[in-house]
Amino acid sequence: MTTSSGHTTAILASKVKGTAVYNGNGDKIGTVEDIVLDKQTNQILFAALGFGGVFGIGEKYYPVPWSLLDYDEDKGGYVVPLSEDRLKSAPAYDLKDLTKHDGSLGSIRETSYSYYEVTPDWH
Amino acid sequence: MTTSSGHTTAILASKVKGTAVYNGNGDKIGTVEDIVLDKQTNQILFAALGFGGVFGIGEKYYPVPWSLLDYDEDKGGYVVPLSEDRLKSAPAYDLKDLTKHDGSLGSIRETSYSYYEVTPDWH
Repeated sequence: MTTSSGHTTAILASKVKGTAVYNGNGDKIGTVEDIVLDKQTNQILFAALGFGGVFGIGEKYYPVPWSLLDYDEDKGGYVVPLSEDRLKSAPAYDLKDLTKHDGSLGSIRETSYSYYEVTPDWH
Repeated sequence: MTTSSGHTTAILASKVKGTAVYNGNGDKIGTVEDIVLDKQTNQILFAALGFGGVFGIGEKYYPVPWSLLDYDEDKGGYVVPLSEDRLKSAPAYDLKDLTKHDGSLGSIRETSYSYYEVTPDWH
């Protein structure tokens, strides 16, 4: 169950939190803060990335389609194939908004997938 | 984004690990040891439950369809609507087998979903 590049396709959720995230240029830009799971289906809603340390925005979290994160064995972290500018202006939220119970989460997910141009697989 | 019973449909992966699991009778039978995520798609392959403390099987992990776990606010844990007998004889594996890279993971997932009679949503 490896990809063409030899990466595994399965990972334990507990191994992901805190893992470094790099941009398309190979610069470290933040970490995976957590993963948001749908309770009703077997779907990962998105990864919540934190770029606070670099961009100075503080507590904002960036919902990014999980499938966009490509694990790089050599770097020991995830590569998001986007420029720093593109990531800087991405949709960002407070962490509490990413697990809200009021129906806004679906719209946040749509906004994220649209921004990163990833085709939703739940439609 | 709540269910009819008022439960949220989203949860942070980091909150799940170590959460108690109860059977259909309300008896505590183990814990969620981890969640196994597909790296290529936005899918949760399964939850890995540990019943070792109760059944005395030691290090075996039970891959269970994530959507089968129903969070119970009062209990502060997940309820799997099955009898102890049914759970005792469920497919169980070493943890390392649940993140293997050799193609066996797809077959483990099929076995799990079939045993628990959950319709696969990736077909």
